[in-house]
Amino acid sequence: MPGNSFGKAFVVTTWGESHGKALGAVIDGCPPRLPLRELDIQEELDRRRPKKSAISTSRREPDKVEILSGVFEGTTTGTPILLIIYNKDADSRAYKAIKDLFRPGHGDITYQKKYGIRDYRGGGRASGRETAARVAAGAVAGIVLDQEGIKARAYTLELAGVRAQHVDFEAVDRNPFFAPDLDAAGRMEEKIKEIKASGNSAGGIVEVRVDGCPPGLGEPVFDKLDADLAKALMSIGAVKAVEIGVGLEAARLLGSECNDEITPEGFLTNRSGGILAGVSNGDEIVVRAAVKPIPSIEIEQKTIDIHSMSTTISVKGRHDVSAIPRIVPVCEAMVRLVIVDHLLRQRTI
Amino acid sequence: MPGNSFGKAFVVTTWGESHGKALGAVIDGCPPRLPLRELDIQEELDRRRPKKSAISTSRREPDKVEILSGVFEGTTTGTPILLIIYNKDADSRAYKAIKDLFRPGHGDITYQKKYGIRDYRGGGRASGRETAARVAAGAVAGIVLDQEGIKARAYTLELAGVRAQHVDFEAVDRNPFFAPDLDAAGRMEEKIKEIKASGNSAGGIVEVRVDGCPPGLGEPVFDKLDADLAKALMSIGAVKAVEIGVGLEAARLLGSECNDEITPEGFLTNRSGGILAGVSNGDEIVVRAAVKPIPSIEIEQKTIDIHSMSTTISVKGRHDVSAIPRIVPVCEAMVRLVIVDHLLRQRTI
Amino acid sequence: MPGNSFGKAFVVTTWGESHGKALGAVIDGCPPRLPLRELDIQEELDRRRPKKSAISTSRREPDKVEILSGVFEGTTTGTPILLIIYNKDADSRAYKAIKDLFRPGHGDITYQKKYGIRDYRGGGRASGRETAARVAAGAVAGIVLDQEGIKARAYTLELAGVRAQHVDFEAVDRNPFFAPDLDAAGRMEEKIKEIKASGNSAGGIVEVRVDGCPPGLGEPVFDKLDADLAKALMSIGAVKAVEIGVGLEAARLLGSECNDEITPEGFLTNRSGGILAGVSNGDEIVVRAAVKPIPSIEIEQKTIDIHSMSTTISVKGRHDVSAIPRIVPVCEAMVRLVIVDHLLRQRTI
Amino acid sequence: MPGNSFGKAFVVTTWGESHGKALGAVIDGCPPRLPLRELDIQEELDRRRPKKSAISTSRREPDKVEILSGVFEGTTTGTPILLIIYNKDADSRAYKAIKDLFRPGHGDITYQKKYGIRDYRGGGRASGRETAARVAAGAVAGIVLDQEGIKARAYTLELAGVRAQHVDFEAVDRNPFFAPDLDAAGRMEEKIKEIKASGNSAGGIVEVRVDGCPPGLGEPVFDKLDADLAKALMSIGAVKAVEIGVGLEAARLLGSECNDEITPEGFLTNRSGGILAGVSNGDEIVVRAAVKPIPSIEIEQKTIDIHSMSTTISVKGRHDVSAIPRIVPVCEAMVRLVIVDHLLRQRTI
Repeated sequence: MPGNSFGKAFVVTTWGESHGKALGAVIDGCPPRLPLRELDIQEELDRRRPKKSAISTSRREPDKVEILSGVFEGTTTGTPILLIIYNKDADSRAYKAIKDLFRPGHGDITYQKKYGIRDYRGGGRASGRETAARVAAGAVAGIVLDQEGIKARAYTLELAGVRAQHVDFEAVDRNPFFAPDLDAAGRMEEKIKEIKASGNSAGGIVEVRVDGCPPGLGEPVFDKLDADLAKALMSIGAVKAVEIGVGLEAARLLGSECNDEITPEGFLTNRSGGILAGVSNGDEIVVRAAVKPIPSIEIEQKTIDIHSMSTTISVKGRHDVSAIPRIVPVCEAMVRLVIVDHLLRQRTI
Repeated sequence: MPGNSFGKAFVVTTWGESHGKALGAVIDGCPPRLPLRELDIQEELDRRRPKKSAISTSRREPDKVEILSGVFEGTTTGTPILLIIYNKDADSRAYKAIKDLFRPGHGDITYQKKYGIRDYRGGGRASGRETAARVAAGAVAGIVLDQEGIKARAYTLELAGVRAQHVDFEAVDRNPFFAPDLDAAGRMEEKIKEIKASGNSAGGIVEVRVDGCPPGLGEPVFDKLDADLAKALMSIGAVKAVEIGVGLEAARLLGSECNDEITPEGFLTNRSGGILAGVSNGDEIVVRAAVKPIPSIEIEQKTIDIHSMSTTISVKGRHDVSAIPRIVPVCEAMVRLVIVDHLLRQRTI
Repeated sequence: MPGNSFGKAFVVTTWGESHGKALGAVIDGCPPRLPLRELDIQEELDRRRPKKSAISTSRREPDKVEILSGVFEGTTTGTPILLIIYNKDADSRAYKAIKDLFRPGHGDITYQKKYGIRDYRGGGRASGRETAARVAAGAVAGIVLDQEGIKARAYTLELAGVRAQHVDFEAVDRNPFFAPDLDAAGRMEEKIKEIKASGNSAGGIVEVRVDGCPPGLGEPVFDKLDADLAKALMSIGAVKAVEIGVGLEAARLLGSECNDEITPEGFLTNRSGGILAGVSNGDEIVVRAAVKPIPSIEIEQKTIDIHSMSTTISVKGRHDVSAIPRIVPVCEAMVRLVIVDHLLRQRTI
Repeated sequence: MPGNSFGKAFVVTTWGESHGKALGAVIDGCPPRLPLRELDIQEELDRRRPKKSAISTSRREPDKVEILSGVFEGTTTGTPILLIIYNKDADSRAYKAIKDLFRPGHGDITYQKKYGIRDYRGGGRASGRETAARVAAGAVAGIVLDQEGIKARAYTLELAGVRAQHVDFEAVDRNPFFAPDLDAAGRMEEKIKEIKASGNSAGGIVEVRVDGCPPGLGEPVFDKLDADLAKALMSIGAVKAVEIGVGLEAARLLGSECNDEITPEGFLTNRSGGILAGVSNGDEIVVRAAVKPIPSIEIEQKTIDIHSMSTTISVKGRHDVSAIPRIVPVCEAMVRLVIVDHLLRQRTI
């Protein structure tokens, strides 16, 4: 039973390997009569592409998206939308050297055990490259949300231990780390350079806020809005923790410190992160994802080969120092997919 | 589009309100030819029931489970298993007083906005009582897992700021908090008494470990094992954060500190929490859920009524001080449901 | 991967065996704020119950339905509705004699091969009795449809070779065969008596018409309205063929004889049965199900036992001569479930 | 809630419009380690392509399929398989003339009412061309079935009133109608020429047989094997009736004429069509689909335009006289998809 689809009303199925011919997504359930251009999707994809920065890989994919179905004369028709991105710069030679090795922290070993076969080139299906398809689908979701006045925005709250001290949405697209604090962005850059020089890698925290979400989205009991958000974010390769509102801190608060008091004008605080009993309360939705460091590092590590023989590995190839910032638009896309799915589901009530 | 079902191969649908006639679950997809007695399920339910302790509510439900279908002469037949628990001690009078009020931190307001109607008695469907059905279903899942030598165990890692200093599985069922550390359990009791006296409530952290899980479980891309675990735990009412392995800490580690090196004998560490690229690696699975304090507190809080008029509320009724310990078997049950579902799904490959 | 649920937006899961403690259904996705009483469901169930007639079994189940959840003060709340019917008159003694035999035409042999175990009492899960749960769920669907002015009505078009010559809806509930033609009903009775006397059984054809269905229901490509209707009807035990509109006859018509010409006032004919390209066209929906004879007959037949030894069988027990008329409300219920599911699904567009 | 996916374990999602850039399918859940070449799929597609015959359209699509993912070095990897067919010969000019008209018997009017927009070119998503994607996916399913020794074969039992008198599988691919009887094929050709000359169109009956299907496939209650077969075939545009085994005739048989007696060597007859109580019995599976005549005919018909004004239409364009023979491989593909899906589902038991 496969798991490459997400959503129940706005269903996204992604396909494609890192070094295969192409990758993409099918969106089934996108409402008809929406304006949709490749350009709208391309803009989001361009945000995900590696920028010239201390942090990025040297792989330079143009990531040019094409819409092959579901849009007629610039408008969605209600039929499935196929988004395709052809792989151009797939240099698999570097991977030949490690085709018989299991890289620590990677899915090499688990895919091999699961399927008895794996496309080792660039991580195959387990590659971060798969997330380009999610971003493309998230861009389409964004157009549905725009029509409803809903806006999801992600940014880097923390990178390599450097935390943003405030959230300025204007700043986010003005630094290569999608930090909402330009000062912090500067310090992030310093820190990342240092880590890179040492052949190591770093993690961080991405926060996503959803503005304008109407109350009532989310389904009891299992398909709670926060449950689906948790799944959405945890389904991104490098994510190891998900928080809603006060998140982990909730464990240490007293009831009086954690509840949001209610007035006719609205909630006095937003510790809940905009979700109560799994259903949106009309307040801003706030979620966070903790991102682990990129597992491919130059520092030598113990590992085994496919014959279970002991060896060591030092991954050189083309790798980012951190999944941040590229993961930021991916988190944003996943949150959009959840919100749009529940928005459509709520219409059946 | 409803959300009261969980799983794709081992599908659990729960139904029932806190103060309705009954609640329960249908399990569709349980393999045939397994021994299953009501007694096996009852034992798990009894663990979830409020014990005589500083922490618990005064509601005394016997929570007697009955199997109405799917079992013939003590053996599962492969057909749907209906589990039912009749509500006995449902005193709804206390709730009349608050039927027109929205309790801060509760789903009262969001259910009202979602459906335009709500069963206000005892929280209705949003009540923690719904989780009895999950525990019952989880007990059935446990029987499937037993046959495969897989064991999921949950315990209270932290309560009201008091953290267990070590994990002794023997200790877990020997204190009313399911703490794996008897010393910590003692301090938890002190702390909880103090908070109760002040009319407040407390949160904590539950950890679940799965021993004996074979490698290969979990489906790329969206139905990753950790993604489904995150959803499973976040779908429990009070949970505000979910962590896998090192969890949130991953954000601050370097790659060399976060990867698990591999040897022919296995992984040298288990920072990954037993899951790589969404697929189990054969190591112990480790997940944590952060639980918020019970929102119903005696301390007066600002709120509104259903006519949007300002008022205050002080919840007396029968309420626990913390969702811990009752939530502990619920977390265990949800983890079991995820594992058994993926175990069956893996068989199709 | 289980198959006891039907629908995507209005999801019905049935459970229970013929001679188990109870049987019933969970409905997940029923819209909130609808009036719903047990009485409304009971009326439909009573139509399905064996009447005092030439055709019926001697089993006399009161089939008393109870609503255990999802309804508060007479109104649906949007949460799952549990319908339960306790089995009262389950005399399993007659089945002991055949517990090691496979009855020709029955699921005994296939269930045994599928699961390696079966509840042989009264056919277990494969019994026609399971359809009581469908009728109960269909009654709830009927209340949603009523609100939209949609009406689904089933009747016996043909029984034991006797065909109704016209359709008079008034007649349907005025004869024990649900025939829409009282003359035909009389001849059906004659024919059935004759067949019964010979220890044999008979089949027939049920037709269902849906009046008031708006255009636009049905999803391309696979979830076409007619595809889901075909599945719904074919999922009823005894059904061996399903037709939409002109049905089988379409194979022999010319295009000019099969198309429905269109005028500003509507279609000139309704050969399509109200569905074009899988989507309702606003005209009356017309479907038919061919029902095979009850396989349990007194006439001796060759069979084998569970040890594959040759033997013969003559089924006495309590059996109807035909699945008609009891299957008629079941067909109606299944059609209602399809229509209400697509009605809700269409709202997401 | 969309409907462009089929299956639960072997999930096929099709996408694409008749005159769009491309069409295709994603297969999620194909087992790993199977040999799969584009050539295998191409062969099946070539069978579906219009041949030089009395019956076929003048559109000449090469229908060249490409595999873009899920296959590594000629072997399936367990990840989604994307199949794509670029549209080459899409001359939409002929459709401009009818873009404001609703063709009788077509989905023009229902798609317009459903979505408020439609891609009128060549029928858009409702075109028979969509079935190329099904045939491609069915070819992949066929490879899984081959490994299990299961073979599904379709043929034309009847065309324009001419019925095959016997079934000779050798004959099927030796005549342009996929008739299993060369004499009948000759008479079909005569009949079709005659109908074509009169500007009319014809229907027929396709039969599919599955050889080697193990007992035990099919899920009670709703996902019966015959229920899913009925849905699968009825989801093909032109199909108006589906029969299993004796089919419609079952309505007129007596129990003793309809049951299949059982001996240690197997069933004495196969009236059931290989399915009992929704579960395969190990015998040959036999299903039939009744196909209506192509609705696009030259004979003038009454219709309306999108402004509801009365007019007439005589469709010239490039149209087949009958959906047969092109629909034959489509029926075969749909049956394969059902069988492979249930084969994988049965493994979870």
